[in-house]
Amino acid sequence: MSDLNPILSGSAQSIAAYQEAIEQSTQAVVQWLKQPEMYQGKTVAELRERINLEFTSQGLGNQAAIERAVEYFLKDSLLVHHPQCVAHLHCPSLVISQAAEVLINATNQSMDSWDQSPSATIIEMKLIAWLREQVGYPAGDAGVFTSGGTQSNLMGLMLARDAFFAKRGHSVQQHGLTGALSKIKVLCSENAHFSVQKNMALMGLGYQAVTLVKTDEFSRMDISDLQQKLADAKANGEQVMAIVATAGTTDAGAIDPLGEIAALAAEQQIWVHVDAAWGGALLLSEKYRHFLDGLELADSVTLDFHKQFFQTISCGAFLLKDARHYQLMRYQAAYLNSDFDEEQGVPNLVSKSLQTTRRFDALKLWMGLEALGKKQYAEIIDNGVTLAQQVAQFVSEQPQLELVMQPQLASVLFRFRPQNGDLAGVALLNQRIGDALLASGSANVGVTEADGVTCLKLTLLNPTVSLADVKVLLASVVACGEQLHNA
Amino acid sequence: MSDLNPILSGSAQSIAAYQEAIEQSTQAVVQWLKQPEMYQGKTVAELRERINLEFTSQGLGNQAAIERAVEYFLKDSLLVHHPQCVAHLHCPSLVISQAAEVLINATNQSMDSWDQSPSATIIEMKLIAWLREQVGYPAGDAGVFTSGGTQSNLMGLMLARDAFFAKRGHSVQQHGLTGALSKIKVLCSENAHFSVQKNMALMGLGYQAVTLVKTDEFSRMDISDLQQKLADAKANGEQVMAIVATAGTTDAGAIDPLGEIAALAAEQQIWVHVDAAWGGALLLSEKYRHFLDGLELADSVTLDFHKQFFQTISCGAFLLKDARHYQLMRYQAAYLNSDFDEEQGVPNLVSKSLQTTRRFDALKLWMGLEALGKKQYAEIIDNGVTLAQQVAQFVSEQPQLELVMQPQLASVLFRFRPQNGDLAGVALLNQRIGDALLASGSANVGVTEADGVTCLKLTLLNPTVSLADVKVLLASVVACGEQLHNA
Repeated sequence: MSDLNPILSGSAQSIAAYQEAIEQSTQAVVQWLKQPEMYQGKTVAELRERINLEFTSQGLGNQAAIERAVEYFLKDSLLVHHPQCVAHLHCPSLVISQAAEVLINATNQSMDSWDQSPSATIIEMKLIAWLREQVGYPAGDAGVFTSGGTQSNLMGLMLARDAFFAKRGHSVQQHGLTGALSKIKVLCSENAHFSVQKNMALMGLGYQAVTLVKTDEFSRMDISDLQQKLADAKANGEQVMAIVATAGTTDAGAIDPLGEIAALAAEQQIWVHVDAAWGGALLLSEKYRHFLDGLELADSVTLDFHKQFFQTISCGAFLLKDARHYQLMRYQAAYLNSDFDEEQGVPNLVSKSLQTTRRFDALKLWMGLEALGKKQYAEIIDNGVTLAQQVAQFVSEQPQLELVMQPQLASVLFRFRPQNGDLAGVALLNQRIGDALLASGSANVGVTEADGVTCLKLTLLNPTVSLADVKVLLASVVACGEQLHNA
Repeated sequence: MSDLNPILSGSAQSIAAYQEAIEQSTQAVVQWLKQPEMYQGKTVAELRERINLEFTSQGLGNQAAIERAVEYFLKDSLLVHHPQCVAHLHCPSLVISQAAEVLINATNQSMDSWDQSPSATIIEMKLIAWLREQVGYPAGDAGVFTSGGTQSNLMGLMLARDAFFAKRGHSVQQHGLTGALSKIKVLCSENAHFSVQKNMALMGLGYQAVTLVKTDEFSRMDISDLQQKLADAKANGEQVMAIVATAGTTDAGAIDPLGEIAALAAEQQIWVHVDAAWGGALLLSEKYRHFLDGLELADSVTLDFHKQFFQTISCGAFLLKDARHYQLMRYQAAYLNSDFDEEQGVPNLVSKSLQTTRRFDALKLWMGLEALGKKQYAEIIDNGVTLAQQVAQFVSEQPQLELVMQPQLASVLFRFRPQNGDLAGVALLNQRIGDALLASGSANVGVTEADGVTCLKLTLLNPTVSLADVKVLLASVVACGEQLHNA
């Protein structure tokens, strides 16, 4: 963006053009926000048919390009802020997050060297220090913003692996994996995020390295089974390089018993990584902060701000308790972090990250905390957890609905269960309810499985959603279920 | 964002508040764009001192939060679009990219399931198909948008590794690495991006698995040394799982001989991944497209649109020639891609990506292509390459400057060389020139090494920069160099 532009025709890159383009896009968003339907309901086939890419030679200019994006993209986007949009850990965003994005994108700072992001680098480091305080970690700035939970989990697992080998005098960074790899295990619960498996495959240890620990009736890691699995591992000559605990499983919102897990791990000096991508929001909670007791004992933590912190995608963080472990992934490139710069104390975030070029996503959280303050932030986070409890109570009172599990964070697992129906068809029926509601454009409800039971899921992140809104949604579920069942 | 908000005080999340926040941020950006200095020149220590995080309980509200972000972040950001900001592969962005970001962030679609991003999913898939056409790949949509080059390179290396083992009847995804790992090698040039090493460490094979092939006088992979290294590997009982060719090295912009590399690799059925994070911009070039001849022979390709495609961070892509290889990383999660959905033909991008939650970055490239058209896009890309040739000519005519290498893409490597100076101090002198210019706020010039020679680097991506601008910058370099040298 510059006012000078000898190449592009007209002044498509001028400051005035910037203002016009932002104004036009913002107006389009405003119209879209007023759209009453959650979704226009087009099918995959209809969208495939409708969207065609044919770029011209001379270009349409900014205005027409925005108009076309509105027509083909915006109008057929899902209204994530709609009260009936509750399928996923996919949040409506704060207005301040939108404002932060304007600054992030206009400045386009890149976090891979200080001279591409001077103030941004310092803000990110200070925010990491602040997050560490919230967790109860020692003072410091070991940690980094990430593209999301999957990447943060990858960092935790990679450092756990490399620390495991380092203790045995071997550098994975330099020399790669070695020894009887099939004997190296990671333990996590049956309800841990699939990124544990995916990341272990990426890291060369494979799904086979993941030992699943049983869960209790609330999808939390069963401590007695963890003890058993640790004993089994020892008996089999296996070595446990890490335990991944989850604070907020994707479906049930279950929080594993963090303190007990950490105590067991400490006995054998096993790395504990906590995937708190969802539940980490409770760091700011006034009512539910104690759900995270024990988080401070973990060696590394995943946080995600594009979930229940209401920031736009992408916005995640990885925190590392002991900064010395960062040495395990240090790399030096002359053009980013020279010896000379390091001696001068120039900060170097590229060595703390799996990305090179990286957005200044930290600004969103900083501005969110500034704008809302800790108390308001706590309220919008707590709201979802409290609402889920109320919804569960209501669901359990409805004859055609069955509560599948008591909520723990902000999700409710339940299913439609016709009173005269055979149980065999219930799974497919619930799947079809979810699809029919989405196809009608009226609601997006999650369809998932809990302990082998196909069920529906409400993920009640949105702080503007009331119990009355959810009752409307549940009435649609019942109406849709009856219609499909009787058809 | 919603007009209804029973939780947050006032109407901080209303549509009106959204409009006000965008307007306020945009105005702040406009003022900042008019700032004449490239950077205000604060030191690391000054920024550390100045920026303090103290969040209030009640919050400051949107307006004050934006004001504080302007004061502490925006004013001390680097003006990436400034003509004297030429240190890194860090581009000024198109106005249309800023407009696209407004839509991306307001809708906050997540690409990990179709029901979180209906139109966005289809647009991304069609854009991947279009990019494949530009490369010369068979029709299809195997590929995905990524957070950037490092992640795209990781996908290429991971699939190369897993295909290597699959041919030998072994699934790394299921069972992890096995066998004599120290015998498995990846070949890349000495000038390949450090993400090759970093990713090999992450993947469990370590830096030791990377065999560096010598480069010629233009930092391109030396084919005779590649032949030698392949022969050496065979003689040592090593197996080459991939060759990573670079199309646009970070400093020199060198493009390895893609066709010759592919031919050698084909003889032994070795996977070729091309890191075209920078040089991939030439896919749109009118003058220089032939530099990429042979790219279509690669098994996988990295492209980055937040470099010479002038998009904001993040915006990258990974392309996979043969879609069947995607089976190597397939994973199924009930809540994202159920059997039922797959049978119904619902697209599933999460299985093609290393991320789960993921931004709709593809929109930026789509809108950029719509707005500029292919011809204007070609012109702004070609401009940098042509300018670099002119600058190199000029540099070689200056008595106090030494051209270190002939440019190939849009970068110029050179150094200040005092006529009466001892050569021993030249490296430090050039380092100090770079630091002094940045500290003065007048310019950001890269400092790097080429073949062990510390030199300065101009990365001339910005299409609004003219030869006259660069001459001003070079005069500052000389003046600064003389001052430091004579001090």
